[in-house]
Amino acid sequence: MVKNGQSNLVNIGVEVMGGDLGPQPGVKGALMALDKTDCKITLIGKEDIIRKLLKRHSRTDRIEILHADDVVTMSDNPVKSLKNKPLSSIRVAFEALKKGQIDAVVTPSNTGAVIAAAVYTLGLYSFIKRPAIATLIPRMDEKRPFLLIDAGATPQCDPVNLCDFAVLGSVYYQILLNVPSPRIGLISNGAEEIKGNDLTRAAFRLLKEKFGDQFKGNVEGRDLLKDFVDVGVCDGFTGNIILKCLEGTAEFVVEFIKENLKWHPIAALGLWLAKRHLKRLFYKKLSPSAYGGAPLLGVKGLTIICHGMADEFAFRNSILVAKTFVEKEIHRVIESSFLSPAVKTVGTI
Amino acid sequence: MVKNGQSNLVNIGVEVMGGDLGPQPGVKGALMALDKTDCKITLIGKEDIIRKLLKRHSRTDRIEILHADDVVTMSDNPVKSLKNKPLSSIRVAFEALKKGQIDAVVTPSNTGAVIAAAVYTLGLYSFIKRPAIATLIPRMDEKRPFLLIDAGATPQCDPVNLCDFAVLGSVYYQILLNVPSPRIGLISNGAEEIKGNDLTRAAFRLLKEKFGDQFKGNVEGRDLLKDFVDVGVCDGFTGNIILKCLEGTAEFVVEFIKENLKWHPIAALGLWLAKRHLKRLFYKKLSPSAYGGAPLLGVKGLTIICHGMADEFAFRNSILVAKTFVEKEIHRVIESSFLSPAVKTVGTI
Repeated sequence: MVKNGQSNLVNIGVEVMGGDLGPQPGVKGALMALDKTDCKITLIGKEDIIRKLLKRHSRTDRIEILHADDVVTMSDNPVKSLKNKPLSSIRVAFEALKKGQIDAVVTPSNTGAVIAAAVYTLGLYSFIKRPAIATLIPRMDEKRPFLLIDAGATPQCDPVNLCDFAVLGSVYYQILLNVPSPRIGLISNGAEEIKGNDLTRAAFRLLKEKFGDQFKGNVEGRDLLKDFVDVGVCDGFTGNIILKCLEGTAEFVVEFIKENLKWHPIAALGLWLAKRHLKRLFYKKLSPSAYGGAPLLGVKGLTIICHGMADEFAFRNSILVAKTFVEKEIHRVIESSFLSPAVKTVGTI
Repeated sequence: MVKNGQSNLVNIGVEVMGGDLGPQPGVKGALMALDKTDCKITLIGKEDIIRKLLKRHSRTDRIEILHADDVVTMSDNPVKSLKNKPLSSIRVAFEALKKGQIDAVVTPSNTGAVIAAAVYTLGLYSFIKRPAIATLIPRMDEKRPFLLIDAGATPQCDPVNLCDFAVLGSVYYQILLNVPSPRIGLISNGAEEIKGNDLTRAAFRLLKEKFGDQFKGNVEGRDLLKDFVDVGVCDGFTGNIILKCLEGTAEFVVEFIKENLKWHPIAALGLWLAKRHLKRLFYKKLSPSAYGGAPLLGVKGLTIICHGMADEFAFRNSILVAKTFVEKEIHRVIESSFLSPAVKTVGTI
């Protein structure tokens, strides 16, 4: 942990400027996290704005502000923003992480720009060519959620990238959920080995060779939320579409039921009775806020990417997750296990 | 329409052998369709089995049997099955379609084998390199469902294939739903033009050039079920994963609600009250049976591919859909409009 002045508490850097909802959710979420746990938080962004938001709240201990002049917006070109906005909150955050002023970065900003800045500033692990976002998705068994990797960092992949993502995802799942040998699946358009596109058919052979029995072959879209595999590997293009399809479909089903049953008196009464519990259930277990953000794996430094629409609860959860990751030294474990071919022998923490 | 002996009724060929549930649903669905409409049906498969299944029912007018010795199973290699099983029910069905003995083929068999046999026997339209499956997905507005193309016929695509699929899908949507200029979207990992992989970025330029304002740019996974675009274009690998994700998520959400609320007395009572209506709603509007099967577009002959698990209702609906398509001469219209660059000028029937 970084030594911050008088204490050696974990210090989480929260970049609050780049989200769709402005800086408020980040500041609020940070205050909520401080009520829950004993870390420090460095809020990164425009100092005057952050200071104004903080004034409304009595709690200001364990909080620092790191000023950044500029903001990368959602419409900025990720790679160009690196050059054109060198003093953006994203860049300032990663520079601070690199210098050891903070232990992790939590950010809701333009995902492409975050990835570009993270890779540029922190660099990738040796032996890895591309980073991946690892997103946990709730399933029936709370202890066995589904890990989707890559959920959007690298849209264009080669078979070796997919194999690297399987290693990253498998070690991450192992550490996070205490599952010794997570089952790995390759997301494809059919269960049989001959199914897939050129990319996945080549990756299939590599995964089989590297993971042996831990690799469970192809897994289809309809089985991701069933208890067939723990880690589902795909390129970031496919992963991002899957993630957003899951979100969109869940929303649609609920809306569809509401809309179509509102004129059936008995059904409407039933749904009205169940409504409060349904809302709580969805919010607690199925909303994107539930797991906080998703880590960007492969870069040398802990980065948690939140949803662009992250609310204060999503920020709070992301900060709590980041703190746990720092304490578990998840990055060091992933990097070291990555260098060993026998991923299965990596112990859980 | 084919002249079949005494009548000139439309004759739908129903290949009943290759589904996961055996030949019964196909035979039952055919009988149900005959009760609903005035077509003829040719059941294709093992004659003795079909005859036995038909014996249980009184209705046998307007039904013929076309015997096929062999069956392509779900685990058969699609391309090898062409050579190894030349007398399979799939092959016999397409030969009959080619000879004009029947007007359309409805089949629940191994999708890969169906596509291989259709392309081999019937051939593709000139100016097209690959076929596509066009699947309608229900949305809130029943008159504006979402058309996913390609839902799984061509997993490995080039940008021109995607552009061809957009033409096929757009004309199909236009004819089927009487929508003059369907909005076309390219399914991608972000709305901005720079998002995507190498394939979609190249396809984006082609689509913009070909369709002008009719092309609405990239569409994200979460917006497919919203009223943003009518036709969503992607390669068959991505499309198949999307389709199965939608199915899997809808099932999951319902199961998740049931499982998590069964111990809350009020919520459980509410759900119990709404149950009958929910079931009917899902069955009528969201089950894969609702729209019947999906046509394989691009081949010279009308082929409707049902779900492998198609029940008698799915068969019945697929037969009814096939009959409408034959009557609307949907294939001729698609082929002729395909040869014209101004797709928008094709009138609806």
